[in-house]
Amino acid sequence: MKIMVINGPNLNMLGVREKDIYGLDNLESIEKMVEKECKKRMHTVEFFQSNSEGAIIDNIHRAYFEKFDGIIINPGAYTHYSYAIHDAIKAVNIKTVEVHLSNIHSREEFRSKSVTASACIGQISGFGKIGYLLGIYALEKQN
Amino acid sequence: MKIMVINGPNLNMLGVREKDIYGLDNLESIEKMVEKECKKRMHTVEFFQSNSEGAIIDNIHRAYFEKFDGIIINPGAYTHYSYAIHDAIKAVNIKTVEVHLSNIHSREEFRSKSVTASACIGQISGFGKIGYLLGIYALEKQN
Amino acid sequence: MKIMVINGPNLNMLGVREKDIYGLDNLESIEKMVEKECKKRMHTVEFFQSNSEGAIIDNIHRAYFEKFDGIIINPGAYTHYSYAIHDAIKAVNIKTVEVHLSNIHSREEFRSKSVTASACIGQISGFGKIGYLLGIYALEKQN
Amino acid sequence: MKIMVINGPNLNMLGVREKDIYGLDNLESIEKMVEKECKKRMHTVEFFQSNSEGAIIDNIHRAYFEKFDGIIINPGAYTHYSYAIHDAIKAVNIKTVEVHLSNIHSREEFRSKSVTASACIGQISGFGKIGYLLGIYALEKQN
Amino acid sequence: MKIMVINGPNLNMLGVREKDIYGLDNLESIEKMVEKECKKRMHTVEFFQSNSEGAIIDNIHRAYFEKFDGIIINPGAYTHYSYAIHDAIKAVNIKTVEVHLSNIHSREEFRSKSVTASACIGQISGFGKIGYLLGIYALEKQN
Amino acid sequence: MKIMVINGPNLNMLGVREKDIYGLDNLESIEKMVEKECKKRMHTVEFFQSNSEGAIIDNIHRAYFEKFDGIIINPGAYTHYSYAIHDAIKAVNIKTVEVHLSNIHSREEFRSKSVTASACIGQISGFGKIGYLLGIYALEKQN
Amino acid sequence: MKIMVINGPNLNMLGVREKDIYGLDNLESIEKMVEKECKKRMHTVEFFQSNSEGAIIDNIHRAYFEKFDGIIINPGAYTHYSYAIHDAIKAVNIKTVEVHLSNIHSREEFRSKSVTASACIGQISGFGKIGYLLGIYALEKQN
Amino acid sequence: MKIMVINGPNLNMLGVREKDIYGLDNLESIEKMVEKECKKRMHTVEFFQSNSEGAIIDNIHRAYFEKFDGIIINPGAYTHYSYAIHDAIKAVNIKTVEVHLSNIHSREEFRSKSVTASACIGQISGFGKIGYLLGIYALEKQN
Amino acid sequence: MKIMVINGPNLNMLGVREKDIYGLDNLESIEKMVEKECKKRMHTVEFFQSNSEGAIIDNIHRAYFEKFDGIIINPGAYTHYSYAIHDAIKAVNIKTVEVHLSNIHSREEFRSKSVTASACIGQISGFGKIGYLLGIYALEKQN
Amino acid sequence: MKIMVINGPNLNMLGVREKDIYGLDNLESIEKMVEKECKKRMHTVEFFQSNSEGAIIDNIHRAYFEKFDGIIINPGAYTHYSYAIHDAIKAVNIKTVEVHLSNIHSREEFRSKSVTASACIGQISGFGKIGYLLGIYALEKQN
Amino acid sequence: MKIMVINGPNLNMLGVREKDIYGLDNLESIEKMVEKECKKRMHTVEFFQSNSEGAIIDNIHRAYFEKFDGIIINPGAYTHYSYAIHDAIKAVNIKTVEVHLSNIHSREEFRSKSVTASACIGQISGFGKIGYLLGIYALEKQN
Amino acid sequence: MKIMVINGPNLNMLGVREKDIYGLDNLESIEKMVEKECKKRMHTVEFFQSNSEGAIIDNIHRAYFEKFDGIIINPGAYTHYSYAIHDAIKAVNIKTVEVHLSNIHSREEFRSKSVTASACIGQISGFGKIGYLLGIYALEKQN
Repeated sequence: MKIMVINGPNLNMLGVREKDIYGLDNLESIEKMVEKECKKRMHTVEFFQSNSEGAIIDNIHRAYFEKFDGIIINPGAYTHYSYAIHDAIKAVNIKTVEVHLSNIHSREEFRSKSVTASACIGQISGFGKIGYLLGIYALEKQN
Repeated sequence: MKIMVINGPNLNMLGVREKDIYGLDNLESIEKMVEKECKKRMHTVEFFQSNSEGAIIDNIHRAYFEKFDGIIINPGAYTHYSYAIHDAIKAVNIKTVEVHLSNIHSREEFRSKSVTASACIGQISGFGKIGYLLGIYALEKQN
Repeated sequence: MKIMVINGPNLNMLGVREKDIYGLDNLESIEKMVEKECKKRMHTVEFFQSNSEGAIIDNIHRAYFEKFDGIIINPGAYTHYSYAIHDAIKAVNIKTVEVHLSNIHSREEFRSKSVTASACIGQISGFGKIGYLLGIYALEKQN
Repeated sequence: MKIMVINGPNLNMLGVREKDIYGLDNLESIEKMVEKECKKRMHTVEFFQSNSEGAIIDNIHRAYFEKFDGIIINPGAYTHYSYAIHDAIKAVNIKTVEVHLSNIHSREEFRSKSVTASACIGQISGFGKIGYLLGIYALEKQN
Repeated sequence: MKIMVINGPNLNMLGVREKDIYGLDNLESIEKMVEKECKKRMHTVEFFQSNSEGAIIDNIHRAYFEKFDGIIINPGAYTHYSYAIHDAIKAVNIKTVEVHLSNIHSREEFRSKSVTASACIGQISGFGKIGYLLGIYALEKQN
Repeated sequence: MKIMVINGPNLNMLGVREKDIYGLDNLESIEKMVEKECKKRMHTVEFFQSNSEGAIIDNIHRAYFEKFDGIIINPGAYTHYSYAIHDAIKAVNIKTVEVHLSNIHSREEFRSKSVTASACIGQISGFGKIGYLLGIYALEKQN
Repeated sequence: MKIMVINGPNLNMLGVREKDIYGLDNLESIEKMVEKECKKRMHTVEFFQSNSEGAIIDNIHRAYFEKFDGIIINPGAYTHYSYAIHDAIKAVNIKTVEVHLSNIHSREEFRSKSVTASACIGQISGFGKIGYLLGIYALEKQN
Repeated sequence: MKIMVINGPNLNMLGVREKDIYGLDNLESIEKMVEKECKKRMHTVEFFQSNSEGAIIDNIHRAYFEKFDGIIINPGAYTHYSYAIHDAIKAVNIKTVEVHLSNIHSREEFRSKSVTASACIGQISGFGKIGYLLGIYALEKQN
Repeated sequence: MKIMVINGPNLNMLGVREKDIYGLDNLESIEKMVEKECKKRMHTVEFFQSNSEGAIIDNIHRAYFEKFDGIIINPGAYTHYSYAIHDAIKAVNIKTVEVHLSNIHSREEFRSKSVTASACIGQISGFGKIGYLLGIYALEKQN
Repeated sequence: MKIMVINGPNLNMLGVREKDIYGLDNLESIEKMVEKECKKRMHTVEFFQSNSEGAIIDNIHRAYFEKFDGIIINPGAYTHYSYAIHDAIKAVNIKTVEVHLSNIHSREEFRSKSVTASACIGQISGFGKIGYLLGIYALEKQN
Repeated sequence: MKIMVINGPNLNMLGVREKDIYGLDNLESIEKMVEKECKKRMHTVEFFQSNSEGAIIDNIHRAYFEKFDGIIINPGAYTHYSYAIHDAIKAVNIKTVEVHLSNIHSREEFRSKSVTASACIGQISGFGKIGYLLGIYALEKQN
Repeated sequence: MKIMVINGPNLNMLGVREKDIYGLDNLESIEKMVEKECKKRMHTVEFFQSNSEGAIIDNIHRAYFEKFDGIIINPGAYTHYSYAIHDAIKAVNIKTVEVHLSNIHSREEFRSKSVTASACIGQISGFGKIGYLLGIYALEKQN
C-alpha cells in the first residue's frame, strides 16, 4: 500500500504544546515510528503537515492524482468545522482513517463533534501516537 | 464589464468528484463556456480557483484594486462558515453574485445555510454550470 | 416551452409595497417584461397571482393537467412555511424555479429559510425583476 | 492480559440484522476471530453479550472483582443514552475501549453522540469486525 | 518587551472597508501609531497581517521560536470559528491579548461569540485603533 | 353514524403524486372503498377535499351545524403547521380521527410533528388507504 | 375615521367554541357592540371574517384601495405563523391594531409568539370583547 | 396469521395506574378481548409483558426464530428513548404496529416523540384498548 | 375604583431616554394625563416608580393590604426576566394590566418575550402614553 | 411506617466508585445506618438494590401490593432518562422521596435534569448518606 | 451553630399567596417553628426576608462578617435567574442549604432550573415548611 | 473628565471572594489605585458599589443629571441578565466602558454572554484590576 499521513494545524508543535494532553513526543519521532512500522509491513508512506486548510485540501487532491491507496489524517482543530476538508475526502474517494491523539469525547464540548469523520471509513481517538499505527492496521484490513 | 469568476475549495476536482451531484464537466470546460459567452457579450473575464480561504480573500481584495465591475463566486464549502469571505465581499463593495452548482436546499442540513450570501446582491443555486451564465446576465442587468 | 409564472401573496401590491425593498415596478409591468422576452424566445407563458395558498396549489396541479413544461414561482411569504406548496411541486413533477425579488439571505432571519426550494431544481434570489428572466433562461438550459 | 469483550443489544443478531450495514458475519465468528488473535498474542479473553442494560453493568462490575486488565465494549444502541453504563465504566476504573462496527458519524444523527465514550480511553468506529482487533492492539499499547 | 501584533483577514482593507464601522485609518497608520508608542515605551514590535488562517498560525508558532514576550491579535472574522488559532495560542503559551476595533457585542449575533478569547489573557473591544495601545499597556502590567 | 371524511392539500393528486410513497390508488377509488364499507356498516358518509386551509376549516364548522357524529381527517402538509385547523377541531368538539397514508415518523423530520393531532381523539399513520377504514372502526368503538 | 375590523379563523364560531376561554358572546353581538360604539364616536366601520388566509390578505389590500384609516385585526391562529399576513399589513401601510380575546401569554407556548404584531402599531390581548373597543380608542389617539 | 402482542413497562399495572388516562380495564381483560377477536378471525396470538427493556428485545428476537407474522407493540415509556427496541424491530424485519392507549400528542411534550415508530409500519394512538384491535385489522390488510 | 400605576426601571428617564422610541413626554406629564382622566372617571389613583425590582414587589404587596382594585404596571426591562414580579402579581390576586409604551414585538428579539404578562389579565403594547388610558378603560370593563 | 429504600445502578459499588464524589462508605454501612435510625423511630424498613431498570420497576410495583407507606429512592443514572420509573412511581401512588448523595446541580450538565423527581413529593441532593435520614424525617412529617 | 435563615421575594405573602401551592401557614408561624426547633437543638438562629435581590446579597455578606456557621436560603423566584446570589454564596464560602416549599420539579418548566443550587451544598424541595427543619438537620450532619 | 466608577454585586467582597479567580486585592485598594491614576491625569473620579440592581440604575441616572463625562462599570453577575442596566446606559447616553476582572470567555458558559456590553462603547475583560486603568485610557482617547 501507498499511504499518505496528513497532520493538521498545531501538530508541528507536538512536544512543545500542552504536554499533559498531547504527550512528550514531537511530530518527527511519531513520523519515524510510523515509517519504521510501514517499512516492516512493506508499505510506502509519505508525510505532510500544514497549518493551512487549503494546503491540506491540495494534498488530499494530490493523493488522488498520485494514486495513493489510503490516507491517515489528523485534521487537528479543523476536525470541528472544515466542511471543505470533508468535501475533499469525499471528492477523492480514497479510504481515509481519521486519527486523534487525545480522546476528543472527554475534552471541551466543541471537540466531540467531527464534521470530517463522516467522510472517512472510521475514526480512532484517544490512544496517543499508537492511533497512527492502529490506522495503518485498519487500512490493511480493508483491502 | 470586467468580471472575476472565483471558485472555492474542491471545485478543481469537478469531473472527478461525486459526479452524481456535480455532473461530468470539469472546471476547465466550465471556464471555457463562460469565457466564450463573455467574449460574445463583450466582457473581460478572469478566472481564479483556490482551496485556500486566505487566497480567495486576497483575490477579492485584488478585484478592488484592479477595478473589477463584478464578481461571480462559488465559495464551495466555505459558503457555510467563512465569515471572513463574507467580510471580504462587504469590504470591497463590488457587485457579487453567489453561484452553486447543486441545489443547496435539497442536500444535507448544513448546506442550506449560507453565511456569504448576505454580502452578495443575490444567490443562484441548482442549475449546474448554467448558474455561471445566469450570474453574468444578472450582473449585466444590474448596471 | 409552455411556462407558468406563479406569484404568491402580496406580490400584487408591488409598486405600492415597501418600495425600498421591492422596487418601483408593479406586477403588471414585470409580467409584460416577461411576456415580451417569452415571445422573443418562442415560449408560451401564462401568469397567475394569488394571495391564497390553496389557489396556488390548485394552479400547480392545473399545470400538470394542461401539460406545462416549466414553472417559475415566487411563493412570497409562503416560502418560509408552506410545506403544502412544497408537496404540490413534488406531486406534479414539473421543472420549477423558485425566484425572489430581494436577497432573502440579507433580511430578517425567518426569510433565509425556504421550505419550498428543496422541491425545485434551483433558486434565484436578489436580482429584482431580472430574476424572472434568469428563471426562463434556466428552464431553457435544462431541456 | 485478561480481556473482557462485551457486546450490547442486538449484536447477537449479527448476520441476520441489516446486513448492508453490519456485514454477513455472525457474532460467533467474530468472537472466534478475536479468540484466535488473543491466543496468538498470549491474552486470556472472555466474551459476554446481553440485551439487558442491567446485565451489562453487572458484568462490568464483575470484571472488577475478577481482576480483568481491559474491556472492549460495543454498547450497541445503549451508546447513545446509557449514562448508567458510563458510570459503571467509571466505577471499575479498568481500561476500556469502545468499538462500533459501523461508522457512527455517517448514519442517523443520534448515533453520532456517544454518552459512554467519555468514560473510555478511546473510541474506534467504522472498521467492521476489525475494530475488535484494533481494540486489542490499543489495550496492549497502553501497558 | 518583544511584541508581535497580528492582524487577521480584511484588516489590510482598513480605510477602504465599511468606514462607518471601522473608521478612516488604514492599517499602515495604525501600525505607525503602535510603533511610535512602542518606541516611546522601549518595546520591540513586529507586525504581521494575513488573510490566511494557516499563515496566522505559522506566525504564532514563530513567536514561540523567536522568543516573543507578548502577542496582540485581532483575528478578524476568524475570531468566531477558528478553533485552530485558539489551539495555536494555547500551544505557544505566550501572553496574548485579543483586540477588536468595533464593539463585537453590538453588531450581528455571530460576532458576539469569540472562540479564540478563552485562549488569551483577556479581550478588548470597541475602542477603535486605541484598542491596540490598551493591549500594550495590558501586556506591560502583566509582567 | 354520520361521518365526514376530509382530505387536505395534494391528496387530489393521489395516483399521480410520488407513487412510491403514496401508492397507485387515486382519491376517487379510496373514497369508493370507504363508501362501500360505510354502507355495509350502516353509516352515512360525506367526502370533502380541498387544497385551501380556509375551506377545510369552513367544512369542519359545517360538520358542527349539520350535526355530524365523527370526522376523519387527513390534513396533508397542513398537519405540520396549521394551528388554525387545530383550533377548528377544538371549536366544534366532534370526535375526530387523524389519518395519514404514509408513516409520518419515518420520513423527513418536519413530518413527524403534528400540530393538529392533539385536538383529535387519536392518530393513525402508515397503513395506506386502510387507515381510513381503521378510522371508521375507531369512531364506532368510541360510541 | 373609516375602520376595517378583520376577524380570522374560527372567530365565526364564538359562542360555540371553547366557552371557558373565549366567553359566551358570538361574533355578531361583538360586531354590534363595536358598531354602536363607532356610531357614537362618528366612525364608519366595516366587518370582515374569514377562515382563509388568502381572503384576509385580499381584504387588507382592499383597505388600501378603499382608503381606510385604520384596521383592527384578530388574526386568530394565523397570528402564530402567517408571515404572509405580516407582509400584507406592511405592504398597505395602514395603522393596524392587533387584538386577542384571550391573554395569549398565559396559554400554550406556541400562542405567546406573534409573527404579525411587529407589523402593527401595537397589540392588545386578554380583555375579551372589550379589546376591540380599546383598539378603536387606540386608533383615535394615533391621529 | 401468528401474532405477538408485546406490552412494555407499567402496562401490567393497568386498572391500578392513573385510571383517568388509561381507563379501568386491566391488562388481562384487554388480552382476553384481543384473544377473542383473534379466534374469530382465525389468528394465533401470543402475549408478552415485561418491565425490562432487555426482555422485550429478547422476545422481539424470539418472534423472528418462531416465525411470527406480525407484532403489535405498546412500548410504554420506552417509546421515547429506547433506540435498542427500535433496532430490534429493524433487525427482525417483521411487520410491527405501534399502539398507545392514550393520545400521545395531547399529553406531556416528551410523549409526542417516538423513537420506535420509525421502525414500525405505522402507529395508532388515542383509542384506548380498541387500538389493539385496529392493530390487528391493520396487519391483516397488509397481507 | 382605587388604582395603582407602577412604572419600572428607566421610566423615570422618559423625555431624556431614546426619544425616537419612547417619545418626548416625561413621566410627570404622563402621570398628570392619567390623573386627569381618573378624576373625570371618578377613580382614585396612586403612582409609583422605581428602578428596584424589590421595591416594585413591595408595592404590589402594599396594593393588597391597602385594598386596591386594580394595578396598571409597566415593568420596563424587568418584563423579560423577573419571575419574582410575576409571582408577586399572582400572590396578591388583584386585576393587573401590563402596559408598554413601545411595541415590544417590533424591537430586539429579547423584548418580545414577557414573563410577567401571564400573571396579568392582559397586555397592551405599542400605543405610547395612551396605553395607560386604555389600561384604565380595560380595568373598568372588567368590573 | 413501612418504608422501602431503593438504590439504583452502580450504588452497590459505593466505597469502590469515584470516592471523591460519593464518599468512602459502602452501601451496606449506609443501609445499616438507615436501619438503626428506623428501629429507633419504630419504622419497618426493607432494602433493595438493582442495576436493572426493569427490576426497580418490579419492586416499586411490589411496594404497592405489599402495602408500603413510603419509598426512598436513589435512582442513580436512571434519574436522568427513565420515564418508565417515573411512570411506575406515578402508578403506585405511594409517597416517594428522591435522594442523591452528591449535589446533582454542581456536576455535569446532564445530572441537573431529573425526569423522576416530578413523580415524587420532593427531592434531596448533596448531603451524602445523611440524605437518606432526611428522607425518613420528610416521610414522617407527611403523615 | 449560628444559622441564618433567608427568605426571598413573595415569601412574606405566605398564607395569602396561592394557598393551594404554598399552604396556609404564614412566614411568621414558619419562623416560630424553626426557632423552637433551633432552641431545642441549641442553635442560634436569625431570620431575614426581603423582596430585594441586593438586600439578600448584602445579608449573605453580613453572614460572613458576623461568622455564621450555616445559611438556609429559599431564594423564591430569584432561584431561576439570580447569578448574583449564586456568586454571593460562592464568595462567602459558608455552608448553605437551598430550600423550596413546593416541588419545583412538578410545576412550570422555568421553575425546575436553579442557578443558585450549584453554589450550595444541597437542595431540598417539596416538603412544605418541613423543608426548613430538614435543612437544619442537614447542616448539623455536615459538621 | 468627570468619571463615575460603578462596581456591581459581590465586588465589595474582593479579597475575600474566590481569590484564585479574582485576586488578592480588595475593592478599597483598587479604588485607591484608580484614584491615584485619575489625580495624575487630572480627572475627577467618584466611586459607587452596590449589590442592588435598582441602586446601580439610580446611579447611572445620577451620572446624567450631574453631568459625568464617562462611566466605567463592572456589572458583576448582572452582566449576564440585567436588561434593565442595559437600558439605563442607553437612556443616559454617556460614554461607558464595561470592565471585568476575569476573562469572561474562559469560565462558565453563562459568563461569556454580556447583555450590557452592547450599550457600552466597548468591553475590557481578563486583565485584573488593570482593566479599570485601561478603561480610563479608553475614555480619554474617545474625546
